[in-house]
Amino acid sequence: MTQTSSAIDEIAANRCFGGWHRRFRHYSATLRCEMVFAVYLPPQAASAPVAVLYWLSGLTCSDENFMHKAGAMRVAAELGIAIVAPDTSPRGAQVPDDPDGAWDFGHGAGFYLNATQQPWAEHYRMHDYVVFELPALIEACLPVTVHRGISGHSMGGHGALVCALRNPGRYRSLSAFAPISHALDSPWGQKAFARYLGADRATWRAWDACELIADASERLPLLVDQGEADGFLVEQLQPDKLQRACLAAGHPLHLRRHPGYDHSYFFIASFIDDHLRHHAAALIR
Amino acid sequence: MTQTSSAIDEIAANRCFGGWHRRFRHYSATLRCEMVFAVYLPPQAASAPVAVLYWLSGLTCSDENFMHKAGAMRVAAELGIAIVAPDTSPRGAQVPDDPDGAWDFGHGAGFYLNATQQPWAEHYRMHDYVVFELPALIEACLPVTVHRGISGHSMGGHGALVCALRNPGRYRSLSAFAPISHALDSPWGQKAFARYLGADRATWRAWDACELIADASERLPLLVDQGEADGFLVEQLQPDKLQRACLAAGHPLHLRRHPGYDHSYFFIASFIDDHLRHHAAALIR
Repeated sequence: MTQTSSAIDEIAANRCFGGWHRRFRHYSATLRCEMVFAVYLPPQAASAPVAVLYWLSGLTCSDENFMHKAGAMRVAAELGIAIVAPDTSPRGAQVPDDPDGAWDFGHGAGFYLNATQQPWAEHYRMHDYVVFELPALIEACLPVTVHRGISGHSMGGHGALVCALRNPGRYRSLSAFAPISHALDSPWGQKAFARYLGADRATWRAWDACELIADASERLPLLVDQGEADGFLVEQLQPDKLQRACLAAGHPLHLRRHPGYDHSYFFIASFIDDHLRHHAAALIR
Repeated sequence: MTQTSSAIDEIAANRCFGGWHRRFRHYSATLRCEMVFAVYLPPQAASAPVAVLYWLSGLTCSDENFMHKAGAMRVAAELGIAIVAPDTSPRGAQVPDDPDGAWDFGHGAGFYLNATQQPWAEHYRMHDYVVFELPALIEACLPVTVHRGISGHSMGGHGALVCALRNPGRYRSLSAFAPISHALDSPWGQKAFARYLGADRATWRAWDACELIADASERLPLLVDQGEADGFLVEQLQPDKLQRACLAAGHPLHLRRHPGYDHSYFFIASFIDDHLRHHAAALIR
């Protein structure tokens, strides 16, 4: 199949809050496979380009989870912000998957990094995909500006932090829901890093939010929401470590802990409006 | 298994907008099978019983579709209304299903009626389940009042109309999204009615919204939203017939037609807030 990254095919369109939810398929030269992503274009995009919030989803998700479950379109339409939801890994029969069929590695678990180890390195380059290829495609094909925000959930919260911290100047705003704060010290992160990046733990630091915050050259104010009844809180997410890293580095962090809330989209839906307004304050000015 | 209809087992609970999304399993004596339903309890329910909006979903849905995708909890929490989402049919291996495995009959397609024909009559009694058994159970076990509203989508819009029109005095408020307005004259309705109710079309009239509106003794103001890009509009939904029936009977109808909107939950999410406020105006007073 010969396809260029400038070609996108619309596979669905649904009117929503006066704007449009649209799904596209395209060939990703970065990932060397076909990918699907979703966009919410608010009503304002019909008359002028709008800023974009990139949403990175968690383990096992596709582009659909956030668009169906977060309830974000109402306020996105009010504020005039587009939302882009990529998939969470390269996909397809030719893309190697977890040999044991586990849900926390391989398909649906790209961890938003660039793999260096075989057999993963050929396709698993989600960092370059979400930071460079996908925005370039969207900015070429859809009515959006280059004003970008980034957020995400769990593995995608880790991804949002790492993508922003590694690329100063590329995003105007940053937030996360229940991020894997210190991936190199969490079981999910260790499993992924050991395979995608190899045994040398020195290479892991470049993909860890707490490590990157220590040396960041840009200090985007960070809004983080965390449910206190989240079953992954202590072992995988470790917001205390994020808090300590931000304190030590002087990085602005607004960490909100919510009693009773878990890791689900019921939690995300309850607080997404605040995140959209946090991003809008930086994106629209 | 010996179970009574007074026993409900909680199988999930998620904090959401200050209240709780909860799922329960119970044995339904009406349907002669185990059923799952979902409830959203707003924060106000922690201090005093609250009114309930019953939501009847469309073909193929379970209790989950509305709770995950409609974005209804925010305004339900603001207004102090509970929402109950039952399943769309009896379930389980012992419940007969469409012999051809079709998605528009049998499991996921109970049509909110009481079947009279074999092999359906033993289990397919969704009318009595959603109108009587489920409310009795909920009113006995959860902090809710007997102030009930009812709404639904597509097959569930038909169900909401029929349940309210057949049971004057039981509901205080009524609305629907893209209802099957004249089921006995739509392909979905004809297939279901012929099997559940038999070949005698005279029996179908008691389960058809347009027929029931003609003779209704109660005139609950009806809010109906319909997308004009809905692929089922002309053949299955036929809002013109509902409009004519309401006009002829003097039944108050506010039918809103929305250009560009389809049959999906993106459409429902866009207008659910108006429905919640419509119900609250009648439920909370």
